[in-house]
Amino acid sequence: MKLDGGWFTEVAAEEGVALSLQGRRLQVEQTPYQTVEIYETDSFGTMMVIDGCVMVTDRDSFIYHEMLAHPVLFAHPAPRRVLIIGGGACGTLREVLKHKDVESVVQVELDERVTRLAELHFPELTEANADPRAKFSFGDGIPWVRDAADESLDVIIIDSTDPVGPAEGLFSQGFYHECLRVLRADGLLVQQSESPFYYPETIVDMRRRLHAAGFMDVRTLTFPQPTYPSGWWSATMAKKDGRLNSFRRRDAEEKPFPTRYYSAAVHETAFVLPPFLREAIASAK
Amino acid sequence: MKLDGGWFTEVAAEEGVALSLQGRRLQVEQTPYQTVEIYETDSFGTMMVIDGCVMVTDRDSFIYHEMLAHPVLFAHPAPRRVLIIGGGACGTLREVLKHKDVESVVQVELDERVTRLAELHFPELTEANADPRAKFSFGDGIPWVRDAADESLDVIIIDSTDPVGPAEGLFSQGFYHECLRVLRADGLLVQQSESPFYYPETIVDMRRRLHAAGFMDVRTLTFPQPTYPSGWWSATMAKKDGRLNSFRRRDAEEKPFPTRYYSAAVHETAFVLPPFLREAIASAK
Repeated sequence: MKLDGGWFTEVAAEEGVALSLQGRRLQVEQTPYQTVEIYETDSFGTMMVIDGCVMVTDRDSFIYHEMLAHPVLFAHPAPRRVLIIGGGACGTLREVLKHKDVESVVQVELDERVTRLAELHFPELTEANADPRAKFSFGDGIPWVRDAADESLDVIIIDSTDPVGPAEGLFSQGFYHECLRVLRADGLLVQQSESPFYYPETIVDMRRRLHAAGFMDVRTLTFPQPTYPSGWWSATMAKKDGRLNSFRRRDAEEKPFPTRYYSAAVHETAFVLPPFLREAIASAK
Repeated sequence: MKLDGGWFTEVAAEEGVALSLQGRRLQVEQTPYQTVEIYETDSFGTMMVIDGCVMVTDRDSFIYHEMLAHPVLFAHPAPRRVLIIGGGACGTLREVLKHKDVESVVQVELDERVTRLAELHFPELTEANADPRAKFSFGDGIPWVRDAADESLDVIIIDSTDPVGPAEGLFSQGFYHECLRVLRADGLLVQQSESPFYYPETIVDMRRRLHAAGFMDVRTLTFPQPTYPSGWWSATMAKKDGRLNSFRRRDAEEKPFPTRYYSAAVHETAFVLPPFLREAIASAK
Protein backbone atom coordinates (compact mmCIF):
# COMPACT_ATOMS: atom_id res chain seq x y z
CA MET A 1 0.00 0.00 0.00
CA LYS A 2 1.26 3.47 -0.84
CA LEU A 3 0.95 6.44 1.45
CA ASP A 4 -0.13 9.37 -0.66
CA GLY A 5 0.15 12.97 0.56
CA GLY A 6 -0.71 13.93 4.10
CA TRP A 7 1.64 11.55 5.91
CA PHE A 8 4.83 12.22 7.86
CA THR A 9 7.27 9.28 7.69
CA GLU A 10 10.25 8.60 9.93
CA VAL A 11 12.61 6.05 8.42
CA ALA A 12 14.94 4.03 10.66
CA ALA A 13 17.17 3.28 7.71
CA GLU A 14 19.53 0.81 9.36
CA GLU A 15 16.58 -1.21 10.59
CA GLY A 16 14.67 -1.11 7.31
CA VAL A 17 11.52 0.11 9.06
CA ALA A 18 9.49 3.30 8.93
CA LEU A 19 6.68 4.77 11.00
CA SER A 20 4.18 7.10 9.36
CA LEU A 21 1.61 9.40 10.95
CA GLN A 22 -1.25 10.99 9.05
CA GLY A 23 -1.49 14.76 9.36
CA ARG A 24 -0.33 18.10 8.03
CA ARG A 25 2.74 20.18 8.74
CA LEU A 26 2.04 23.45 10.53
CA GLN A 27 5.55 24.84 10.68
CA VAL A 28 9.15 24.08 9.77
CA GLU A 29 12.16 25.95 11.09
CA GLN A 30 15.86 25.55 10.47
CA THR A 31 17.52 26.50 13.76
CA PRO A 32 21.30 26.91 14.19
CA TYR A 33 21.42 23.26 15.29
CA GLN A 34 18.72 21.26 13.55
CA THR A 35 15.45 21.22 11.62
CA VAL A 36 12.35 21.41 13.82
CA GLU A 37 8.92 20.60 12.36
CA ILE A 38 5.50 20.84 13.96
CA TYR A 39 2.63 18.68 12.65
CA GLU A 40 -1.04 18.46 13.45
CA THR A 41 -1.66 14.73 13.21
CA ASP A 42 -5.04 13.05 12.77
CA SER A 43 -4.86 10.90 15.89
CA PHE A 44 -1.76 11.82 17.91
CA GLY A 45 -2.53 15.53 18.28
CA THR A 46 0.37 17.94 17.85
CA MET A 47 3.76 16.40 17.08
CA MET A 48 7.30 17.79 17.13
CA VAL A 49 9.88 16.29 14.78
CA ILE A 50 13.62 17.07 14.96
CA ASP A 51 15.86 16.16 12.02
CA GLY A 52 13.24 13.69 10.81
CA CYS A 53 12.73 11.91 14.16
CA VAL A 54 9.54 12.10 16.22
CA MET A 55 10.33 13.84 19.53
CA VAL A 56 6.94 14.35 21.22
CA THR A 57 3.26 13.93 20.44
CA ASP A 58 0.25 14.98 22.51
CA ARG A 59 -0.93 11.38 22.69
CA ASP A 60 1.95 9.17 23.75
CA SER A 61 4.77 11.26 25.22
CA PHE A 62 3.35 11.03 28.73
CA ILE A 63 4.92 7.60 29.03
CA TYR A 64 8.43 8.80 28.17
CA HIS A 65 8.25 11.95 30.31
CA GLU A 66 6.88 10.12 33.34
CA MET A 67 9.42 7.30 33.05
CA LEU A 68 12.37 9.67 32.71
CA ALA A 69 11.34 11.77 35.72
CA HIS A 70 9.62 9.68 38.39
CA PRO A 71 11.74 6.51 38.71
CA VAL A 72 14.94 8.49 39.35
CA LEU A 73 13.27 10.96 41.72
CA PHE A 74 11.57 8.26 43.78
CA ALA A 75 14.82 6.24 43.79
CA HIS A 76 16.65 9.19 45.39
CA PRO A 77 16.14 9.61 49.15
CA ALA A 78 15.72 13.41 49.01
CA PRO A 79 16.07 15.03 45.58
CA ARG A 80 16.45 18.80 46.06
CA ARG A 81 18.59 20.02 43.18
CA VAL A 82 17.96 18.62 39.71
CA LEU A 83 19.65 19.21 36.36
CA ILE A 84 17.95 18.34 33.06
CA ILE A 85 20.15 18.28 29.98
CA GLY A 86 18.15 18.52 26.77
CA GLY A 87 14.45 18.11 27.42
CA GLY A 88 13.58 21.24 25.43
CA ALA A 89 9.95 20.23 24.91
CA CYS A 90 9.61 20.59 28.72
CA GLY A 91 7.49 17.49 29.40
CA THR A 92 10.15 15.91 31.64
CA LEU A 93 10.57 19.25 33.44
CA ARG A 94 6.84 19.38 34.12
CA GLU A 95 6.95 15.92 35.71
CA VAL A 96 10.00 16.83 37.84
CA LEU A 97 8.25 19.94 39.15
CA LYS A 98 5.37 17.81 40.45
CA HIS A 99 7.78 16.72 43.23
CA LYS A 100 7.37 19.26 46.02
CA ASP A 101 10.69 18.36 47.64
CA VAL A 102 12.54 19.48 44.51
CA GLU A 103 13.88 22.97 45.29
CA SER A 104 15.46 23.87 41.97
CA VAL A 105 15.63 22.50 38.44
CA VAL A 106 18.03 23.85 35.87
CA GLN A 107 17.25 22.82 32.32
CA VAL A 108 20.19 23.13 29.92
CA GLU A 109 18.86 22.82 26.38
CA LEU A 110 21.15 23.40 23.42
CA ASP A 111 18.48 24.82 21.14
CA GLU A 112 16.31 27.59 22.57
CA ARG A 113 14.00 27.35 19.55
CA VAL A 114 12.85 23.89 20.66
CA THR A 115 11.58 25.34 23.91
CA ARG A 116 10.03 28.39 22.23
CA LEU A 117 8.21 26.18 19.72
CA ALA A 118 7.05 23.90 22.52
CA GLU A 119 5.65 26.92 24.37
CA LEU A 120 3.74 27.81 21.24
CA HIS A 121 2.44 24.37 20.27
CA PHE A 122 2.46 22.23 23.45
CA PRO A 123 0.75 24.30 26.16
CA GLU A 124 0.29 21.22 28.35
CA LEU A 125 3.96 20.23 28.30
CA THR A 126 5.10 23.76 29.09
CA GLU A 127 2.43 24.64 31.65
CA ALA A 128 4.90 24.49 34.54
CA ASN A 129 7.60 26.62 32.88
CA ALA A 130 6.75 29.67 35.00
CA ASP A 131 7.36 27.71 38.22
CA PRO A 132 9.92 29.82 40.16
CA ARG A 133 11.94 26.65 40.88
CA ALA A 134 12.65 26.21 37.14
CA LYS A 135 15.62 27.92 35.55
CA PHE A 136 16.42 27.78 31.85
CA SER A 137 19.91 27.86 30.40
CA PHE A 138 20.26 27.59 26.64
CA GLY A 139 23.55 26.13 25.56
CA ASP A 140 25.70 23.02 25.54
CA GLY A 141 25.26 20.73 28.55
CA ILE A 142 28.87 19.50 28.45
CA PRO A 143 30.63 22.78 29.40
CA TRP A 144 27.73 23.57 31.77
CA VAL A 145 28.51 20.42 33.77
CA ARG A 146 32.29 20.98 33.46
CA ASP A 147 31.86 24.45 35.02
CA ALA A 148 29.48 23.29 37.79
CA ALA A 149 30.70 22.99 41.39
CA ASP A 150 31.63 19.66 42.95
CA GLU A 151 28.77 17.87 44.72
CA SER A 152 26.19 20.51 43.80
CA LEU A 153 23.39 18.32 42.40
CA ASP A 154 21.22 15.41 43.55
CA VAL A 155 19.84 14.20 40.22
CA ILE A 156 20.92 14.60 36.58
CA ILE A 157 18.40 13.72 33.88
CA ILE A 158 19.77 13.47 30.34
CA ASP A 159 16.79 13.80 28.01
CA SER A 160 18.66 14.12 24.75
CA THR A 161 18.29 13.17 21.10
CA ASP A 162 20.00 10.07 19.72
CA PRO A 163 23.73 9.43 20.34
CA VAL A 164 24.65 10.67 16.87
CA GLY A 165 24.95 14.35 15.96
CA PRO A 166 24.70 17.12 18.57
CA ALA A 167 24.02 14.76 21.50
CA GLU A 168 26.93 12.38 20.91
CA GLY A 169 29.14 13.86 23.64
CA LEU A 170 26.42 13.28 26.22
CA PHE A 171 27.06 9.54 25.89
CA SER A 172 30.85 9.74 26.53
CA GLN A 173 32.86 8.48 29.49
CA GLY A 174 34.46 11.91 29.97
CA PHE A 175 31.08 13.56 30.32
CA TYR A 176 29.89 10.87 32.75
CA HIS A 177 32.99 11.48 34.84
CA GLU A 178 32.11 15.18 35.13
CA CYS A 179 28.52 14.23 36.06
CA LEU A 180 29.87 12.00 38.84
CA ARG A 181 31.92 14.90 40.21
CA VAL A 182 29.01 17.33 40.40
CA LEU A 183 26.67 14.81 42.06
CA ARG A 184 26.38 14.78 45.84
CA ALA A 185 26.46 11.59 47.88
CA ASP A 186 23.35 9.54 47.01
CA GLY A 187 23.44 11.28 43.62
CA LEU A 188 21.70 9.65 40.66
CA LEU A 189 21.91 10.09 36.91
CA VAL A 190 19.36 8.84 34.38
CA GLN A 191 19.63 9.01 30.61
CA GLN A 192 17.36 7.94 27.78
CA SER A 193 19.06 4.90 26.26
CA GLU A 194 17.28 4.13 22.97
CA SER A 195 15.34 1.05 21.82
CA PRO A 196 16.25 -2.13 23.72
CA PHE A 197 15.05 -4.10 20.70
CA TYR A 198 17.03 -2.35 17.96
CA TYR A 199 20.02 -1.04 19.87
CA PRO A 200 20.89 -3.23 22.87
CA GLU A 201 24.54 -2.45 22.12
CA THR A 202 23.85 1.25 22.84
CA ILE A 203 22.65 0.26 26.30
CA VAL A 204 25.63 -2.04 26.78
CA ASP A 205 28.08 0.70 25.73
CA MET A 206 26.45 3.31 27.98
CA ARG A 207 26.55 0.99 30.96
CA ARG A 208 30.21 0.18 30.38
CA ARG A 209 31.11 3.88 30.18
CA LEU A 210 29.09 4.76 33.28
CA HIS A 211 30.90 2.05 35.24
CA ALA A 212 34.26 3.12 33.81
CA ALA A 213 33.54 6.73 34.81
CA GLY A 214 33.18 5.60 38.40
CA PHE A 215 29.44 5.10 38.97
CA MET A 216 29.01 2.30 41.48
CA ASP A 217 25.78 0.74 40.19
CA VAL A 218 23.87 0.94 36.92
CA ARG A 219 20.37 -0.33 36.09
CA THR A 220 18.27 -0.12 32.92
CA LEU A 221 14.49 0.22 32.78
CA THR A 222 12.16 -0.15 29.79
CA PHE A 223 8.71 1.11 28.81
CA PRO A 224 6.50 1.28 25.71
CA GLN A 225 6.71 4.36 23.48
CA PRO A 226 4.52 3.89 20.38
CA THR A 227 5.99 6.67 18.20
CA TYR A 228 9.66 5.81 18.83
CA PRO A 229 11.40 3.13 16.74
CA SER A 230 10.22 -0.38 17.74
CA GLY A 231 7.61 1.10 20.11
CA TRP A 232 9.79 0.07 23.08
CA TRP A 233 12.26 2.38 24.79
CA SER A 234 14.69 2.43 27.68
CA ALA A 235 16.41 4.63 30.21
CA THR A 236 19.58 3.82 32.13
CA MET A 237 20.11 4.94 35.71
CA ALA A 238 23.42 5.16 37.57
CA LYS A 239 24.26 5.76 41.23
CA LYS A 240 27.35 7.60 42.45
CA ASP A 241 27.82 5.53 45.64
CA GLY A 242 26.52 2.15 46.67
CA ARG A 243 23.80 -0.09 45.28
CA LEU A 244 20.95 1.25 43.18
CA ASN A 245 18.18 -0.46 45.11
CA SER A 246 16.68 2.46 46.99
CA PHE A 247 13.05 3.26 46.30
CA ARG A 248 10.75 5.53 48.34
CA ARG A 249 7.86 3.15 47.72
CA ARG A 250 5.49 4.70 50.23
CA ASP A 251 6.06 8.17 48.73
CA ALA A 252 5.43 6.82 45.23
CA GLU A 253 2.24 5.10 46.37
CA GLU A 254 0.98 8.23 48.09
CA LYS A 255 2.20 10.85 45.64
CA PRO A 256 -0.22 13.80 45.55
CA PHE A 257 -0.28 14.04 41.73
CA PRO A 258 -1.78 11.65 39.16
CA THR A 259 0.25 9.79 36.56
CA ARG A 260 -1.00 7.79 33.60
CA TYR A 261 1.83 5.29 33.08
CA TYR A 262 4.03 5.50 36.18
CA SER A 263 3.03 3.89 39.47
CA ALA A 264 4.90 2.35 42.38
CA ALA A 265 4.24 -1.11 40.92
CA VAL A 266 5.33 -0.01 37.43
CA HIS A 267 8.51 1.46 38.98
CA GLU A 268 9.56 -1.92 40.33
CA THR A 269 8.65 -3.93 37.24
CA ALA A 270 10.26 -1.56 34.74
CA PHE A 271 13.72 -2.74 35.84
CA VAL A 272 12.95 -6.41 35.09
CA LEU A 273 14.70 -7.11 31.79
CA PRO A 274 13.98 -10.02 29.45
CA PRO A 275 16.67 -12.72 29.11
CA PHE A 276 17.95 -11.56 25.71
CA LEU A 277 18.73 -8.13 27.13
CA ARG A 278 20.12 -9.42 30.43
CA GLU A 279 22.42 -11.71 28.46
CA ALA A 280 23.62 -8.90 26.18
CA ILE A 281 24.47 -6.83 29.25
CA ALA A 282 26.12 -9.72 31.12
CA SER A 283 28.24 -10.81 28.18
CA ALA A 284 29.73 -7.31 27.91
CA LYS A 285 31.08 -7.26 31.46
CA MET B 1 9.92 11.41 3.18
CA LYS B 2 8.46 9.10 0.57
CA LEU B 3 8.94 5.36 0.57
CA ASP B 4 9.68 4.34 -2.97
CA GLY B 5 9.37 0.73 -4.18
CA GLY B 6 10.58 -2.14 -2.03
CA TRP B 7 8.55 -1.43 1.10
CA PHE B 8 5.58 -3.24 2.60
CA THR B 9 3.26 -0.88 4.53
CA GLU B 10 0.58 -1.80 7.06
CA VAL B 11 -1.84 1.05 7.67
CA ALA B 12 -3.82 1.21 10.91
CA ALA B 13 -6.34 3.50 9.29
CA GLU B 14 -8.39 4.39 12.36
CA GLU B 15 -5.24 5.38 14.21
CA GLY B 16 -3.74 7.34 11.33
CA VAL B 17 -0.45 5.43 11.62
CA ALA B 18 1.42 3.05 9.36
CA LEU B 19 4.40 0.75 9.79
CA SER B 20 6.59 -0.04 6.80
CA LEU B 21 9.25 -2.72 6.38
CA GLN B 22 11.79 -2.76 3.60
CA GLY B 23 11.90 -5.93 1.54
CA ARG B 24 10.49 -7.84 -1.39
CA ARG B 25 7.45 -10.06 -1.73
CA LEU B 26 8.22 -13.72 -2.34
CA GLN B 27 4.69 -15.05 -2.67
CA VAL B 28 1.05 -14.03 -2.51
CA GLU B 29 -1.86 -16.41 -2.24
CA GLN B 30 -5.60 -15.86 -2.07
CA THR B 31 -6.91 -18.64 0.14
CA PRO B 32 -10.62 -19.38 0.66
CA TYR B 33 -10.47 -17.13 3.74
CA GLN B 34 -7.91 -14.39 3.27
CA THR B 35 -4.89 -13.08 1.39
CA VAL B 36 -1.58 -14.44 2.66
CA GLU B 37 1.69 -12.79 1.61
CA ILE B 38 5.27 -13.82 2.32
CA TYR B 39 8.04 -11.21 2.26
CA GLU B 40 11.78 -11.37 2.60
CA THR B 41 12.54 -8.22 4.58
CA ASP B 42 15.90 -6.47 4.85
CA SER B 43 16.16 -6.63 8.63
CA PHE B 44 13.29 -8.72 10.03
CA GLY B 45 13.95 -11.89 8.02
CA THR B 46 10.94 -13.65 6.55
CA MET B 47 7.55 -12.08 7.26
CA MET B 48 3.98 -13.36 6.86
CA VAL B 49 1.20 -10.85 6.21
CA ILE B 50 -2.52 -11.71 6.30
CA ASP B 51 -5.06 -9.30 4.81
CA GLY B 52 -2.50 -6.51 5.02
CA CYS B 53 -1.53 -7.09 8.68
CA VAL B 54 1.87 -8.36 9.82
CA MET B 55 1.41 -11.76 11.49
CA VAL B 56 4.93 -13.06 12.13
CA THR B 57 8.52 -12.12 11.35
CA ASP B 58 11.70 -14.08 11.99
CA ARG B 59 13.05 -11.27 14.18
CA ASP B 60 10.39 -10.26 16.67
CA SER B 61 7.67 -12.93 16.90
CA PHE B 62 9.51 -14.81 19.64
CA ILE B 63 8.12 -12.30 22.13
CA TYR B 64 4.49 -12.87 21.13
CA HIS B 65 4.78 -16.66 20.90
CA GLU B 66 6.57 -16.97 24.25
CA MET B 67 4.11 -14.65 26.00
CA LEU B 68 1.06 -16.45 24.65
CA ALA B 69 2.35 -19.90 25.66
CA HIS B 70 4.46 -19.77 28.82
CA PRO B 71 2.51 -17.51 31.22
CA VAL B 72 -0.67 -19.59 30.91
CA LEU B 73 1.17 -22.92 31.10
CA PHE B 74 3.19 -21.95 34.18
CA ALA B 75 0.05 -20.48 35.76
CA HIS B 76 -1.70 -23.85 35.45
CA PRO B 77 -0.77 -26.45 38.12
CA ALA B 78 -0.54 -29.37 35.67
CA PRO B 79 -1.33 -28.61 32.02
CA ARG B 80 -1.81 -31.92 30.18
CA ARG B 81 -4.32 -31.22 27.41
CA VAL B 82 -4.03 -28.00 25.44
CA LEU B 83 -6.12 -26.52 22.63
CA ILE B 84 -4.78 -23.78 20.35
CA ILE B 85 -7.32 -21.95 18.21
CA GLY B 86 -5.72 -20.16 15.30
CA GLY B 87 -1.95 -20.10 15.62
CA GLY B 88 -1.45 -21.34 12.07
CA ALA B 89 2.13 -20.08 11.86
CA CYS B 90 2.90 -22.65 14.62
CA GLY B 91 5.21 -20.51 16.76
CA THR B 92 2.90 -20.70 19.78
CA LEU B 93 2.56 -24.45 19.26
CA ARG B 94 6.32 -24.82 19.28
CA GLU B 95 6.54 -23.03 22.64
CA VAL B 96 3.73 -25.15 24.12
CA LEU B 97 5.48 -28.36 23.07
CA LYS B 98 8.57 -27.35 25.06
CA HIS B 99 6.54 -28.23 28.19
CA LYS B 100 7.19 -31.92 28.83
CA ASP B 101 4.09 -32.28 31.04
CA VAL B 102 1.85 -31.39 28.10
CA GLU B 103 0.47 -34.68 26.76
CA SER B 104 -1.52 -33.46 23.79
CA VAL B 105 -2.04 -30.24 21.85
CA VAL B 106 -4.78 -29.86 19.28
CA GLN B 107 -4.35 -26.87 16.99
CA VAL B 108 -7.57 -25.80 15.24
CA GLU B 109 -6.63 -23.37 12.48
CA LEU B 110 -9.27 -22.13 10.06
CA ASP B 111 -6.94 -21.78 7.10
CA GLU B 112 -4.74 -24.78 6.32
CA ARG B 113 -2.78 -22.69 3.80
CA VAL B 114 -1.38 -20.55 6.63
CA THR B 115 0.20 -23.63 8.18
CA ARG B 116 1.42 -24.99 4.83
CA LEU B 117 3.01 -21.65 3.96
CA ALA B 118 4.58 -21.48 7.43
CA GLU B 119 6.07 -24.95 6.92
CA LEU B 120 7.57 -23.70 3.67
CA HIS B 121 8.89 -20.32 4.82
CA PHE B 122 9.32 -20.52 8.63
CA PRO B 123 11.25 -23.74 9.34
CA GLU B 124 12.09 -22.59 12.87
CA LEU B 125 8.48 -21.92 13.85
CA THR B 126 7.29 -25.24 12.48
CA GLU B 127 10.22 -27.38 13.66
CA ALA B 128 8.09 -29.10 16.33
CA ASN B 129 5.13 -29.90 14.05
CA ALA B 130 6.10 -33.55 13.78
CA ASP B 131 5.94 -33.98 17.57
CA PRO B 132 3.54 -36.92 18.14
CA ARG B 133 1.74 -34.91 20.84
CA ALA B 134 0.62 -32.31 18.24
CA LYS B 135 -2.59 -32.83 16.29
CA PHE B 136 -3.79 -30.52 13.54
CA SER B 137 -7.41 -29.84 12.74
CA PHE B 138 -8.18 -27.38 9.98
CA GLY B 139 -11.53 -25.68 10.39
CA ASP B 140 -13.53 -23.27 12.48
CA GLY B 141 -12.68 -23.25 16.18
CA ILE B 142 -16.20 -22.33 17.28
CA PRO B 143 -17.97 -25.59 16.25
CA TRP B 144 -14.86 -27.54 17.32
CA VAL B 145 -15.27 -26.27 20.88
CA ARG B 146 -19.08 -26.66 20.75
CA ASP B 147 -18.62 -30.35 19.85
CA ALA B 148 -15.90 -30.99 22.46
CA ALA B 149 -16.67 -32.98 25.61
CA ASP B 150 -17.27 -31.29 28.96
CA GLU B 151 -14.17 -30.82 31.09
CA SER B 152 -11.82 -32.27 28.51
CA LEU B 153 -9.10 -29.57 28.39
CA ASP B 154 -6.70 -27.87 30.78
CA VAL B 155 -5.67 -24.85 28.72
CA ILE B 156 -7.18 -23.02 25.73
CA ILE B 157 -4.94 -20.60 23.83
CA ILE B 158 -6.70 -18.32 21.35
CA ASP B 159 -4.04 -17.08 18.96
CA SER B 160 -6.27 -15.44 16.40
CA THR B 161 -6.29 -12.48 14.06
CA ASP B 162 -8.04 -9.23 15.05
CA PRO B 163 -11.65 -9.23 16.33
CA VAL B 164 -13.01 -8.17 12.95
CA GLY B 165 -13.56 -10.56 10.05
CA PRO B 166 -13.09 -14.33 10.41
CA ALA B 167 -12.00 -14.19 14.08
CA GLU B 168 -14.87 -12.04 15.38
CA GLY B 169 -16.82 -14.95 16.90
CA LEU B 170 -13.77 -15.93 18.97
CA PHE B 171 -14.30 -12.77 21.04
CA SER B 172 -18.00 -13.46 21.87
CA GLN B 173 -19.60 -14.31 25.18
CA GLY B 174 -21.29 -17.38 23.69
CA PHE B 175 -17.93 -18.79 22.58
CA TYR B 176 -16.36 -18.06 25.97
CA HIS B 177 -19.23 -19.93 27.61
CA GLU B 178 -18.46 -23.01 25.53
CA CYS B 179 -14.77 -22.69 26.42
CA LEU B 180 -15.71 -22.63 30.11
CA ARG B 181 -17.70 -25.83 29.70
CA VAL B 182 -14.88 -27.80 28.04
CA LEU B 183 -12.26 -26.70 30.59
CA ARG B 184 -11.55 -28.93 33.57
CA ALA B 185 -11.25 -27.63 37.12
CA ASP B 186 -8.17 -25.34 37.28
CA GLY B 187 -8.75 -24.69 33.57
CA LEU B 188 -7.28 -21.55 32.02
CA LEU B 189 -7.93 -19.66 28.81
CA VAL B 190 -5.65 -17.06 27.29
CA GLN B 191 -6.35 -14.92 24.23
CA GLN B 192 -4.37 -12.27 22.38
CA SER B 193 -6.12 -9.01 23.19
CA GLU B 194 -4.71 -6.35 20.85
CA SER B 195 -2.80 -3.13 21.58
CA PRO B 196 -3.36 -1.77 25.10
CA PHE B 197 -2.44 1.66 23.76
CA TYR B 198 -4.79 1.84 20.77
CA TYR B 199 -7.60 -0.46 21.85
CA PRO B 200 -8.02 -0.56 25.63
CA GLU B 201 -11.78 -0.85 24.98
CA THR B 202 -11.14 -4.21 23.25
CA ILE B 203 -9.51 -5.46 26.44
CA VAL B 204 -12.32 -4.03 28.56
CA ASP B 205 -14.98 -5.67 26.36
CA MET B 206 -13.22 -9.03 26.37
CA ARG B 207 -12.87 -8.98 30.13
CA ARG B 208 -16.53 -8.13 30.58
CA ARG B 209 -17.61 -10.99 28.30
CA LEU B 210 -15.27 -13.48 30.00
CA HIS B 211 -16.73 -12.57 33.38
CA ALA B 212 -20.28 -12.69 31.99
CA ALA B 213 -19.61 -16.15 30.52
CA GLY B 214 -18.77 -17.39 34.01
CA PHE B 215 -14.98 -17.19 34.31
CA MET B 216 -14.16 -16.46 37.94
CA ASP B 217 -11.04 -14.32 37.48
CA VAL B 218 -9.52 -12.43 34.56
CA ARG B 219 -6.10 -10.80 34.26
CA THR B 220 -4.38 -8.98 31.39
CA LEU B 221 -0.66 -9.04 30.63
CA THR B 222 1.32 -6.85 28.23
CA PHE B 223 4.58 -7.13 26.29
CA PRO B 224 6.41 -5.31 23.48
CA GLN B 225 5.82 -6.44 19.90
CA PRO B 226 7.67 -4.11 17.50
CA THR B 227 5.84 -5.07 14.28
CA TYR B 228 2.30 -4.92 15.70
CA PRO B 229 0.45 -1.58 15.86
CA SER B 230 1.86 0.67 18.63
CA GLY B 231 4.66 -1.85 19.31
CA TRP B 232 2.91 -2.90 22.52
CA TRP B 233 0.56 -5.86 22.76
CA SER B 234 -1.54 -7.73 25.30
CA ALA B 235 -3.03 -11.09 26.18
CA THR B 236 -5.93 -11.69 28.55
CA MET B 237 -6.08 -14.76 30.77
CA ALA B 238 -9.17 -16.18 32.49
CA LYS B 239 -9.61 -18.89 35.11
CA LYS B 240 -12.61 -21.19 35.32
CA ASP B 241 -12.63 -21.50 39.13
CA GLY B 242 -11.07 -19.37 41.84
CA ARG B 243 -8.45 -16.65 41.78
CA LEU B 244 -5.92 -16.35 38.98
CA ASN B 245 -2.87 -16.04 41.23
CA SER B 246 -1.28 -19.44 40.78
CA PHE B 247 2.22 -19.54 39.32
CA ARG B 248 4.64 -22.47 39.29
CA ARG B 249 7.54 -20.08 39.91
CA ARG B 250 10.11 -22.77 40.69
CA ASP B 251 9.23 -24.65 37.50
CA ALA B 252 9.50 -21.44 35.47
CA GLU B 253 12.88 -20.63 37.03
CA GLU B 254 14.18 -24.13 36.36
CA LYS B 255 12.60 -24.78 32.98
CA PRO B 256 14.85 -26.98 30.86
CA PHE B 257 14.48 -24.89 27.69
CA PRO B 258 15.76 -21.37 26.93
CA THR B 259 13.53 -18.40 26.22
CA ARG B 260 14.53 -14.97 24.95
CA TYR B 261 11.75 -12.77 26.36
CA TYR B 262 9.91 -14.88 28.95
CA SER B 263 11.34 -15.54 32.39
CA ALA B 264 9.88 -16.15 35.85
CA ALA B 265 10.50 -12.48 36.69
CA VAL B 266 8.99 -11.30 33.40
CA HIS B 267 5.96 -13.51 34.10
CA GLU B 268 5.19 -11.69 37.33
CA THR B 269 5.82 -8.19 36.00
CA ALA B 270 3.83 -8.64 32.77
CA PHE B 271 0.58 -8.49 34.76
CA VAL B 272 1.39 -5.08 36.28
CA LEU B 273 -0.69 -2.60 34.29
CA PRO B 274 -0.15 1.16 34.12
CA PRO B 275 -2.73 3.41 35.78
CA PHE B 276 -4.45 4.49 32.55
CA LEU B 277 -5.19 0.86 31.70
CA ARG B 278 -6.15 -0.14 35.25
CA GLU B 279 -8.56 2.78 35.33
CA ALA B 280 -10.13 1.88 31.98
CA ILE B 281 -10.68 -1.66 33.26
CA ALA B 282 -11.99 -0.56 36.67
CA SER B 283 -14.39 2.01 35.23
CA ALA B 284 -16.05 -0.67 33.11
CA LYS B 285 -16.97 -2.91 36.02
